[in-house]
Amino acid sequence: MHNHKPNIVSEKRHGMTLREIPDIVVGRLPVYLRALSRMSYEGQQITSSKELGERLGISSAQIRKDLSHFGEFGKQGTGYQIEFLIQQLQRILKVGTEWEVALVGVGDLGHALAHYNGFANRGFRITALFDNNPEVIGTAVNGLTILDATKLVPEIQARNLKIAMLAVPADKAQAVASQLVEAGIEGILNYAPINLTVPKRVRVQYIDPVIHLQRMTFYLQDV
Amino acid sequence: MHNHKPNIVSEKRHGMTLREIPDIVVGRLPVYLRALSRMSYEGQQITSSKELGERLGISSAQIRKDLSHFGEFGKQGTGYQIEFLIQQLQRILKVGTEWEVALVGVGDLGHALAHYNGFANRGFRITALFDNNPEVIGTAVNGLTILDATKLVPEIQARNLKIAMLAVPADKAQAVASQLVEAGIEGILNYAPINLTVPKRVRVQYIDPVIHLQRMTFYLQDV
Repeated sequence: MHNHKPNIVSEKRHGMTLREIPDIVVGRLPVYLRALSRMSYEGQQITSSKELGERLGISSAQIRKDLSHFGEFGKQGTGYQIEFLIQQLQRILKVGTEWEVALVGVGDLGHALAHYNGFANRGFRITALFDNNPEVIGTAVNGLTILDATKLVPEIQARNLKIAMLAVPADKAQAVASQLVEAGIEGILNYAPINLTVPKRVRVQYIDPVIHLQRMTFYLQDV
Repeated sequence: MHNHKPNIVSEKRHGMTLREIPDIVVGRLPVYLRALSRMSYEGQQITSSKELGERLGISSAQIRKDLSHFGEFGKQGTGYQIEFLIQQLQRILKVGTEWEVALVGVGDLGHALAHYNGFANRGFRITALFDNNPEVIGTAVNGLTILDATKLVPEIQARNLKIAMLAVPADKAQAVASQLVEAGIEGILNYAPINLTVPKRVRVQYIDPVIHLQRMTFYLQDV
């Protein structure tokens, strides 16, 4: 939600003219991908920016403009081939193949994440669990053995993992994040309700339900 | 993250001149509140927009501009009194007192949310659990009895709840959301990886870890 990196990147990968792509545009692509995947799952083959926009509460012009940063994906009047657009978005977001992900902190939330089946087919698989509690180290969750968090750096390096989820208490989060950075992690999904300080090359995304709830209550009538 | 309501609201509550406050500004206030609360927890009493900005990776000018929508909270040269600014943000976000929250879906994620102690002191308390699984209805999680989801509408109405968390599978989410709306819920925190269709008066916030992960992989080198 609040990404702390410079919010402009150059799009160099597809041999296109260098362009600046705002991070807010990048942030909408996964939402489009999710909606298109849902349409495909429901058996639909073609859609339009109008239909997609109505599903998402985003204007069709915004959707067309966002996609135009990356190429031409539909034809005027005939709309988008859903499967084709899904493949293109997967390529752009680099989720056409699976990223292996480390999960640090296997408490209640960590357990839920380890069991979550919503990562499958969306580009991610948790393949390493870490905790510092001697009572759970060596036990298995969803077929994965929980590793000793003191081995976090060498284990992540040996597996060449680039993405980690952080589900430890707020008081531990910065110390663990620093270890993740040392281990070569480049993207952290942080569930701890605290802001992390990391080098600029490391991206952090935050998930904190209270932030979302407070953003809603602003608009509600006092009860 | 992607809120589907008109993103401008009029600020009428404080007897100020009508002003339009962009939703993106509203969305940053909880982040400021969290950081200020952390500073307070660490024993700090005064901060500046510069220091706050450095913690959050947001410019100090942005922070001053955001806060200026709501009043004058600091003095040039002396900074912000942290406790005072916390109270003001709590008032603006209406989280000075606790909102009672319904949680629908008590699977792995629902269990984690029911046990999560990060809601305390931040304005929210889960006070009603619902599930449709006969094996869990009537059992207790963290001291709360799981209620039969078929009673969702009358139970929520009787308790006058306005906020709900939705932690049911994607295939059930829209049907449950429609029931929540019928019951008078005005804000939904949706953990199901699907877009919801609700009347304009109901606000939805989405939490989907894959959306955040895909937003990171865009920037990573292919492995």
